[in-house]
Amino acid sequence: MAEKQKCTMAFAPATVANVACGFDVLGFAIYGLGDRVTASFKDTPGVSIKSIIGDEGRLPLSVKENTAGLAVLSLLEELETPPKHGIELSIEKQMPLGSGLGSSAASSVAAVVAVNALLGNPFSKKNLLPFAVAGEMAASGEAHADNAAASLLGGFILVKSHRPPDVIDLPTPEKLHCTIIHPDIEIQTKNSRKILKKDVSLEKAVKQWGNLGSLIAALYTNDYELIADSLHDEIIEPVRSLLIPGFDKMKQAALDAGALGCSISGSGPSLFALSSSREAAEIIGIKMGDVLKSEGLSFEIHISKMNTEGAQIIKNTL
Amino acid sequence: MAEKQKCTMAFAPATVANVACGFDVLGFAIYGLGDRVTASFKDTPGVSIKSIIGDEGRLPLSVKENTAGLAVLSLLEELETPPKHGIELSIEKQMPLGSGLGSSAASSVAAVVAVNALLGNPFSKKNLLPFAVAGEMAASGEAHADNAAASLLGGFILVKSHRPPDVIDLPTPEKLHCTIIHPDIEIQTKNSRKILKKDVSLEKAVKQWGNLGSLIAALYTNDYELIADSLHDEIIEPVRSLLIPGFDKMKQAALDAGALGCSISGSGPSLFALSSSREAAEIIGIKMGDVLKSEGLSFEIHISKMNTEGAQIIKNTL
Repeated sequence: MAEKQKCTMAFAPATVANVACGFDVLGFAIYGLGDRVTASFKDTPGVSIKSIIGDEGRLPLSVKENTAGLAVLSLLEELETPPKHGIELSIEKQMPLGSGLGSSAASSVAAVVAVNALLGNPFSKKNLLPFAVAGEMAASGEAHADNAAASLLGGFILVKSHRPPDVIDLPTPEKLHCTIIHPDIEIQTKNSRKILKKDVSLEKAVKQWGNLGSLIAALYTNDYELIADSLHDEIIEPVRSLLIPGFDKMKQAALDAGALGCSISGSGPSLFALSSSREAAEIIGIKMGDVLKSEGLSFEIHISKMNTEGAQIIKNTL
Repeated sequence: MAEKQKCTMAFAPATVANVACGFDVLGFAIYGLGDRVTASFKDTPGVSIKSIIGDEGRLPLSVKENTAGLAVLSLLEELETPPKHGIELSIEKQMPLGSGLGSSAASSVAAVVAVNALLGNPFSKKNLLPFAVAGEMAASGEAHADNAAASLLGGFILVKSHRPPDVIDLPTPEKLHCTIIHPDIEIQTKNSRKILKKDVSLEKAVKQWGNLGSLIAALYTNDYELIADSLHDEIIEPVRSLLIPGFDKMKQAALDAGALGCSISGSGPSLFALSSSREAAEIIGIKMGDVLKSEGLSFEIHISKMNTEGAQIIKNTL
């Protein structure tokens, strides 16, 4: 069977969701971190996961328990003609798990992009989103499209609605850089969601939609000052930041070093800070790291421009 | 005293606040309805209101109880040099009171624009906003800048924060038209605010900021379909619409007649519907009116393009 050796490999980037003022609706993608998934045909029917590298043995190889596996099953269900052969996936994580950087979304997105290419692209890129989101259900128990949409499409995205996922591409100002600091602790999205209150005060909700609205206006007008004025979160950050040692000091250090804004990436524990130059992004990283050093915590820093490309096929031997 | 005869007259338009998904943060101005305020010097010191026309005797002539009077007092307090003469205002309402169309904001805005011109424009137009908002305090007990900002500046505006008022001019798609229906009942803003719950569910708040974000994206990209997809309000409208007879039927009639969206204007009882042509706006008005006719209520209909100019000096004899 000649088709057995054919494979496609996709890379899907890590992502920052929420972005301070956009809980569950905003996200953007970064460079340098993400997941690779290789898809190939196999003789036996169905989907299987051959291997997972980079997860320290923590992710399930069972397709129905794995976000990437579930995403691919969801895609296959929507095909008019089922593929003649089974599909085998190999997952290579190039980013930390439970970091707040959309690890499960990156796996789901890379898997559906790789499999779509393997099958001769029956779906457009944007139409892969519902499958990736279905995969994410396995990780958080809820379907949130913010990480998956940013990882798939790149740049800044707004999730207008989650079911079905409806996403708007927002412009990404050219000079924007992101500093990520990932403290060496882990927070499960499920737990990070449980501690949130079910209600918010109307007063704070109004402030939040003012800030979200102005951030979107700022992205369309390349207004870095307005971006800085908009990156506030009085609803989620005050609760979730309690789980992150040194959060307030790190945020202050980032702002003092010239960050446009700084908040929790997704459900944490990573923080992101935005700035308008690579130099600023690097200094911000050093200053935030100094705080964690004084807390006695180890950490990783990542500096990146906004990733405006999203998921990509990086190998195709069909 | 020659200065006694000199006067300035300003017109400030009626406005639609909230705009479905933007409670307390969005507003736009319309043509055809609004307030005129004439300002002139007088021999005696201080500010006085000479006359109010069009209010059926319901608005206070006492400066400290009148929104326009309070707005002007607020402006005068910020002057480095107090004016040599007193100032007399004449107010002419060309719009209904308690209609949800920003009646008090129109008075405040017209007053500060007229007095600013009378004094030789010590303030830029945008810097008049805090004075107009201070005037509005008298009407609602709270300072909300959405009506005042839209009336002053025209077009679509986003209020990023209320204290101090910080406002962003949003683009106004060229083809947008507005249908206003004003049922012949009256709702006081104070009462309309009291019936709102102090908390909202996080789930609904997330939906709302998704819709607000997408509306702003739609205004920047002239995307009428996305405007239609965004004009939803699951938080305020379900509560306030209970005060408006025939609301659900009017809204449905507007949507059936091709409206992009329809909701309550400000705190009601007026409804607004947006559409992408004058023809559509007129048909929508007829269909909404048919509903109120069948309810046995009298009403007024106004059709307008978006007013992108805002408040204007319409007479200056200095």
